[in-house]
Amino acid sequence: MSKRGRLVVLSGPSGAGKDTVAGKLAESDPCVVISVSATSRPKREGEADGVDYHFLSREDFEAKIDAGEFLEHALYNGNYYGTLRAPVEQCRSMGRHVILVIEVKGAKDIRLRNPDAVLVFVTPPSFSELKARLESRRTESRDDIQRRLNIAVTEELPLAKQYDYIIVNHTVGESAAELGAIITAPQCRREDRNGLIGKILQDAKAENVSAY
Amino acid sequence: MSKRGRLVVLSGPSGAGKDTVAGKLAESDPCVVISVSATSRPKREGEADGVDYHFLSREDFEAKIDAGEFLEHALYNGNYYGTLRAPVEQCRSMGRHVILVIEVKGAKDIRLRNPDAVLVFVTPPSFSELKARLESRRTESRDDIQRRLNIAVTEELPLAKQYDYIIVNHTVGESAAELGAIITAPQCRREDRNGLIGKILQDAKAENVSAY
Repeated sequence: MSKRGRLVVLSGPSGAGKDTVAGKLAESDPCVVISVSATSRPKREGEADGVDYHFLSREDFEAKIDAGEFLEHALYNGNYYGTLRAPVEQCRSMGRHVILVIEVKGAKDIRLRNPDAVLVFVTPPSFSELKARLESRRTESRDDIQRRLNIAVTEELPLAKQYDYIIVNHTVGESAAELGAIITAPQCRREDRNGLIGKILQDAKAENVSAY
Repeated sequence: MSKRGRLVVLSGPSGAGKDTVAGKLAESDPCVVISVSATSRPKREGEADGVDYHFLSREDFEAKIDAGEFLEHALYNGNYYGTLRAPVEQCRSMGRHVILVIEVKGAKDIRLRNPDAVLVFVTPPSFSELKARLESRRTESRDDIQRRLNIAVTEELPLAKQYDYIIVNHTVGESAAELGAIITAPQCRREDRNGLIGKILQDAKAENVSAY
């Protein structure tokens, strides 16, 4: 059986590029999968169930909250958003690492209930770059941009200190490689591999090698 | 100025593949360089000074020991082997990560004097694989192989517990990627990047963003 995959939380302000970074890594590494959130908001045109979101009715969502089926959930703009435990567990039990791209508040919940989760914060390299990236998304109004900047500065960036790692997103390629390294490196920690060394020494003893 | 590179120690039994793994990573990552050891043993045919070793006379080697010019050194078979501090420092100050492929005893010295060094132990996946790899090197006698197995079991593998990471060398490609991850991941530690978040928040304040 393969080793259990890791739970990776990715957060950061709008415009930091967290979705792009996660997508780039998942594209190149078959061991990495991005979690699909559940929501109680109505499906929009062009969205697919299980791809963009797991779409649930408000009643179903609340029943699942009561049944403890969510790893984290929150209410935004009157709609529920959350991460269902079951699909995440299923992927992890097959040895795949699951990335949750979620808000800073959800990240805190994950950390409390999953001490083994690794929390990664993605930030643009500078404030001017954050502004430039938001402004280049021509889909948003000036008010939207200012609201997002305000949330970044008052709510998101100050919580970076609760994360284990910070990726400074200069280029998507470099950042995806860093995220990959953050996921891979701890698998090589000595504490987790002492058993293998013990096994080799045991086998050597069985062959009476130390007596050569 | 670029950030100072890391000091990486790679050890493991003969046949573990540590030179090949280090070589593979250095080949693909221009930020990684493998340190060339110094030795007082005579140059053999085909060896080049500064490539295979820095060749020093016994007197020069001892003078440099006295002058504190070595990061680590040891006497094997009547000859000195060691790592000169200056070339390592020069590479690190240019932001390159320096890998020292050295014996377990040297690794301990490095750790004592360089608490920031990262120590990586390379092991074959099993005892039978270790034996098979040594036996496949047709250059060594049966006695040599048994002596190397004996050193692996009595001196090297038991010291794996002093290392930070253990790479189980199934394939060179995977192991080189793991070594790369071990070097890269700690650069993203939150503690080292808090300053950047502070700077972004400061710049935002200067532009009065939180007051939007």
